[in-house]
Amino acid sequence: MAEIRHALNVKREDDFAAWYQEVISAADMAEESGVRGCMVIKPWGYGIWERIQRLMDDRIKAAGVQNCYFPIFIPLANFEREAEHVEGFAKEMAVVTHHRLIADGKGGLVPDPEAKLEEPLVVRPTSETIIGDAMARWIHSWRDLPLLTNQWANVVRWEMRTRMFLRTSEFLWQEGHTAHADAEDALAETHRALEMYRACAEEDLAMPVIAGEKPENERFPGADETWSIEAMMQDGKALQAGTSHYLGTSFASAAGIKYQDKEGGEKYCHTTSWGVSTRLIGGVIMTHGDDDGLRVPPRIAPHQIVILPMLRDKPEDAELLAYCEDVRTALAAQSALGEPIRVMLDKRPGKAAAKRWDWVRKGAPVIVEVGPRDMAEGKLAVLRRDALWNLDNGKSNFAFTPRDEFTANAAALLEEIQQNLFNEARERRDANITRGVTSMDEVAAHFADGKRYPGWLEVQWSKPTGEALEKVVEQLKALKLTLRNVPRDAEPADGNCIFTGQAAVERVLVARAY
Amino acid sequence: MAEIRHALNVKREDDFAAWYQEVISAADMAEESGVRGCMVIKPWGYGIWERIQRLMDDRIKAAGVQNCYFPIFIPLANFEREAEHVEGFAKEMAVVTHHRLIADGKGGLVPDPEAKLEEPLVVRPTSETIIGDAMARWIHSWRDLPLLTNQWANVVRWEMRTRMFLRTSEFLWQEGHTAHADAEDALAETHRALEMYRACAEEDLAMPVIAGEKPENERFPGADETWSIEAMMQDGKALQAGTSHYLGTSFASAAGIKYQDKEGGEKYCHTTSWGVSTRLIGGVIMTHGDDDGLRVPPRIAPHQIVILPMLRDKPEDAELLAYCEDVRTALAAQSALGEPIRVMLDKRPGKAAAKRWDWVRKGAPVIVEVGPRDMAEGKLAVLRRDALWNLDNGKSNFAFTPRDEFTANAAALLEEIQQNLFNEARERRDANITRGVTSMDEVAAHFADGKRYPGWLEVQWSKPTGEALEKVVEQLKALKLTLRNVPRDAEPADGNCIFTGQAAVERVLVARAY
Repeated sequence: MAEIRHALNVKREDDFAAWYQEVISAADMAEESGVRGCMVIKPWGYGIWERIQRLMDDRIKAAGVQNCYFPIFIPLANFEREAEHVEGFAKEMAVVTHHRLIADGKGGLVPDPEAKLEEPLVVRPTSETIIGDAMARWIHSWRDLPLLTNQWANVVRWEMRTRMFLRTSEFLWQEGHTAHADAEDALAETHRALEMYRACAEEDLAMPVIAGEKPENERFPGADETWSIEAMMQDGKALQAGTSHYLGTSFASAAGIKYQDKEGGEKYCHTTSWGVSTRLIGGVIMTHGDDDGLRVPPRIAPHQIVILPMLRDKPEDAELLAYCEDVRTALAAQSALGEPIRVMLDKRPGKAAAKRWDWVRKGAPVIVEVGPRDMAEGKLAVLRRDALWNLDNGKSNFAFTPRDEFTANAAALLEEIQQNLFNEARERRDANITRGVTSMDEVAAHFADGKRYPGWLEVQWSKPTGEALEKVVEQLKALKLTLRNVPRDAEPADGNCIFTGQAAVERVLVARAY
Repeated sequence: MAEIRHALNVKREDDFAAWYQEVISAADMAEESGVRGCMVIKPWGYGIWERIQRLMDDRIKAAGVQNCYFPIFIPLANFEREAEHVEGFAKEMAVVTHHRLIADGKGGLVPDPEAKLEEPLVVRPTSETIIGDAMARWIHSWRDLPLLTNQWANVVRWEMRTRMFLRTSEFLWQEGHTAHADAEDALAETHRALEMYRACAEEDLAMPVIAGEKPENERFPGADETWSIEAMMQDGKALQAGTSHYLGTSFASAAGIKYQDKEGGEKYCHTTSWGVSTRLIGGVIMTHGDDDGLRVPPRIAPHQIVILPMLRDKPEDAELLAYCEDVRTALAAQSALGEPIRVMLDKRPGKAAAKRWDWVRKGAPVIVEVGPRDMAEGKLAVLRRDALWNLDNGKSNFAFTPRDEFTANAAALLEEIQQNLFNEARERRDANITRGVTSMDEVAAHFADGKRYPGWLEVQWSKPTGEALEKVVEQLKALKLTLRNVPRDAEPADGNCIFTGQAAVERVLVARAY
């Protein structure tokens, strides 16, 4: 096998965290903004987000959920109500105290003391309380239920240590908020959203996930149940990629979300909330990226096929461009994965090879290079981003394909790449979940060797609660481990709890996590 | 002509402002949020915004502009830079001074004095300065130009007097920001964006507009040229519905946006910015609404056709629903106005007549009622929202149409309604622009009678600047009038300036305005 000179400076196995940052910069996805904890999402990163948004939004609308928009500012009183109600109340948020700037007389500006708000406003960290207020206004009788709302918005949580896409002070997300007549209906919605997230992660992002219930200590504050999808990154850590909460009646009673039932009695609604964020993009990078940059699954790629004419700044370029334009038109007229193929003809000045590596680092699924000789032969040089290298000679793995053959097979090729990326990630994930560990000593041993790739453990447990659970969490924390979730589709328990020694009731995932 | 009992309590001609509020509430588009100056945009209002977004975004992308996302917070220093630079600097903005809340010991929360920001952050009122910083980082040479970016975002301007959709403290918008090598290229982009707004307003929103240049006193602070589209509302006032600015090199020099030209010299870029906002929805209401509620042009209607089965809560309902579902499927398989028809089968419980009036007030373009008798006859009762009343008998103007005929003609019907709404608005607009007024006395007389419908004046002027212009603005202000724009497509001047008596150089619109 020939030696390969990869496009990135840092390899995943050498320094995964540095590799992650290099992918973001090499694929030109985002950058630090200079504003504390906030990033600038650049066109390629934002384009991927727009694709995720579009596909998720289609799923949300198909479920009958309606999009709304609620204010970015939340009065302090809403949080006071919540603070009373919810123990683990998070307090790190951006607080607006003034509504005007004035000159300080020294060439600078300061908040105008005359324009101090009577009551400070908080930039929303999540919209539970303000949407709860709206639900209390909107819901009167059982006829108004279920009320299914969603919002696409920016939210702010003041973070001390930030990491692009994974943890930023401002991030973009969707938050679904629904109200129901009873627990049964609310639980069904909680599971519908969870399943929607699983399907979107696996089918659209080609990112295999395990859907399951978070243990009590990992619940959203105030929730009766929190469910998540967990994805395995290429360093073996877990990424919580989406959550769906059944909130019981606790938020409804705090916000006064009541309805008159068919018998005329007044009842509290059962509510849910569920969300995914730009964090998903971090998941895509750490699932599909390789030592040459990002690989974007075709369904969420802003451009699925990029055509690179080998221009020479000469009159002959015109003919070559016309040939490429014909190929572009033929591709754009077709559908793949249920949508018109997104094809881009990159006419920018510059060497084709330099542009090729740009698109390799960005992870466009298919790159097509066309030189005058290819044109003369009616061929195209086709490079699959998921099979970039000829392992025999260490060179780019071009397939010189007759033009008509390529355009006829393009849709199938994109579908194959989508599936390949998923299969590759799923095989890696499945190979790295270890079962059968039966003691904390084995857990410690499993994660002891820093160089090994420990992945996740699926262990049996007795589902301890309260102080007993806290003890488990502390034990794991000492090993830098966390409880991820109780997989929805796991085998039933048939042994003893590795923490308490009691009879196990279910299986739970243990992993290092982002 | 029979008397008609309209769906709203307030008629346009009786109290236009109260009518506007009633439409928003009757069509269930938005409501006050309880947070000062911020509204909740409800599903029907937000659905219209999503349609406008989608159509505008397609136009933006087709022009090669790339979407990005920039931080919501802008450091004070950016505004200090701008305050130095720009005279009419607006200071009413939301200022974040703290990043944590703590309990005050009395059951409340207060900003934590320990968590005071070293430098306050401003919630973006517009992103010129922070995008300017990014452009200064991104642009090195002429090869990087033009740089064409756009952002869909929420922005905040602290407003003392707010009005839903028209003026709110928080609103949603897109802001395009572009950088170019020279004035010629930047001006071309300024005009491309202006023309895009005209086309979107007229073709998508069916809202006729006049594109033209704002006079000097109405320019965006720091801009060399500001262009706008102006729409006439049904009370004869003007609504500025979108603006496109040529910023010269002033923002580039403030932010250091420079490039190396082909000869190796360093030059400042010429920049532009352009935006439209949720204000467009206010324009749609005041252009197309009538005394029965909103009328949504089909291109931007979340549902273009609503099917209402006359359910009786009896077993026979199943057959009726199946019949309606067939009609729905037949319609949804077709395209109108270049997209699949958006059709909704409203299965909610309740009387069909009550639901019909819901959809009339919301302004769904076509409402189809189906009762058991219609089904038996293979017919549908079709109601066009743009021709709601039978003027002879004062009743709903149903057309009982054979089902196959309706589905065969549905696309053409939607296209006709789109065109009708535009024609109606354009005729009203054109009939209410008065030309030939030659003195300020005539202007005063024209707008003197409060009961008349004065519309706009197009007058000739000498394009005064500086103090002479200020004098004109003051004169007009005394009559509650403003200069709107100098229509791009107006006839050349051929008379004298009505303000200065000098030879006129162009024509300018004078109107009351939102």
